[in-house]
Amino acid sequence: MTAHRQPMIEVALYLIPVGLSDAELDMVLPQHNIHIVREIKHFIVENVRTARRFLKKCDRNIDIDLLTFYELNRHTKPEDIPAMLKPLTGGEPMGVISEAGCPAIADPGADVVAIAQSRGLKVIPLVGPSSILMGLMGSGFNGQSFAFLGYLPIDTSQRNRKFKEMEQRIMRENQTQIFIETPYRNNALVVELCKAMPPHIKLCIATDITGAGERIITRGVKQWLNQLPDLNKVPTIFLLYK
Amino acid sequence: MTAHRQPMIEVALYLIPVGLSDAELDMVLPQHNIHIVREIKHFIVENVRTARRFLKKCDRNIDIDLLTFYELNRHTKPEDIPAMLKPLTGGEPMGVISEAGCPAIADPGADVVAIAQSRGLKVIPLVGPSSILMGLMGSGFNGQSFAFLGYLPIDTSQRNRKFKEMEQRIMRENQTQIFIETPYRNNALVVELCKAMPPHIKLCIATDITGAGERIITRGVKQWLNQLPDLNKVPTIFLLYK
Repeated sequence: MTAHRQPMIEVALYLIPVGLSDAELDMVLPQHNIHIVREIKHFIVENVRTARRFLKKCDRNIDIDLLTFYELNRHTKPEDIPAMLKPLTGGEPMGVISEAGCPAIADPGADVVAIAQSRGLKVIPLVGPSSILMGLMGSGFNGQSFAFLGYLPIDTSQRNRKFKEMEQRIMRENQTQIFIETPYRNNALVVELCKAMPPHIKLCIATDITGAGERIITRGVKQWLNQLPDLNKVPTIFLLYK
Repeated sequence: MTAHRQPMIEVALYLIPVGLSDAELDMVLPQHNIHIVREIKHFIVENVRTARRFLKKCDRNIDIDLLTFYELNRHTKPEDIPAMLKPLTGGEPMGVISEAGCPAIADPGADVVAIAQSRGLKVIPLVGPSSILMGLMGSGFNGQSFAFLGYLPIDTSQRNRKFKEMEQRIMRENQTQIFIETPYRNNALVVELCKAMPPHIKLCIATDITGAGERIITRGVKQWLNQLPDLNKVPTIFLLYK
């Protein structure tokens, strides 16, 4: 066991992934994460209720009332973020917990990590599920070069420009293009996308990753048009390649 | 526990991550992965020796002699890959194991996943450590938009063009740029890169992720020039943002 990864905890900002689905924690998180979580008293969280639920799932004996939570989400004022790190600068380990998956990947957690870095504070990411990475693994697409674009623009002309740009980066740079959509728009996106893309482009649709309904399926865009899946409100990640 | 993630195994191509460092497996892999590994008899591996060592680390009671290994690496002829999936098409689960980290992300594993997808075979990625993702989490950089570029070009003029392109994508697209270098060239790269980039660009250097020597540090490129780290032959991932 390496010194660094011992449950004996360091004075650091721990980035603590949570599950993506209803899967049991031992399906998606290393035991080590649970050991670390037990040692932390101060958590910066995207949502206090879900964070509490996660901590109870890690260890039902954790006394939530002894913990302090600092909420960091789109409603947080930027000027309020630095103060959240006081316990860490005072010598106490802290944890960052987001709504789903890995903190600081597609959530406000990155802001507090940036502040920690700018102050020379130690940051330690823990292993956990990422729909971006697991979708890419399962797609069979190029993993030597890929881009995650987050949400596509909603405005039609901007969106069509983005489709063109993705196609160009696939063809010219051999770069896999990965993106998400607001779940209730998933079905509309698939139709739009598969009509806009030429037949030599492949789409991987990865739904409910790590969950009971996990499906990671790669097909040509025109094949998808012949057998449209129902992705309405299902957590889904989309990947494009040739 | 979800039906799907039960140790009761499916007829699928399991993508099985391995460690990145000398860390114990329970530091970086969920228990579930070990349960799955125990059930698989046919493995497509990048290197048979390291795969054997990994399997013994998962469970020293695994009888390696009862397992079949199919080597898939840069020396493999593309026409030999489809035949590797015979056990799976015959109804037996298979595993893919790469040299380090997550299979099919930056290794030949992606080729066999692509073939499995084209035949409609089920592919199931398991959770494990990824230096790309963990480096991004720890960097404090934008995780809503990022690109992994693999290795930078070696030719100086091509490399400088790549530097310019990365700078443009950071400034115009707010896209974090992530890349790697051949370990013995790490030190030269840092100097080159920090000289080439303007002062408002930040570089995160993430070394020995999950290992005893893990360090994930973000600084301005000019700050790095004043305190150059020794990264010679140390596994490192580089991230750039503003």
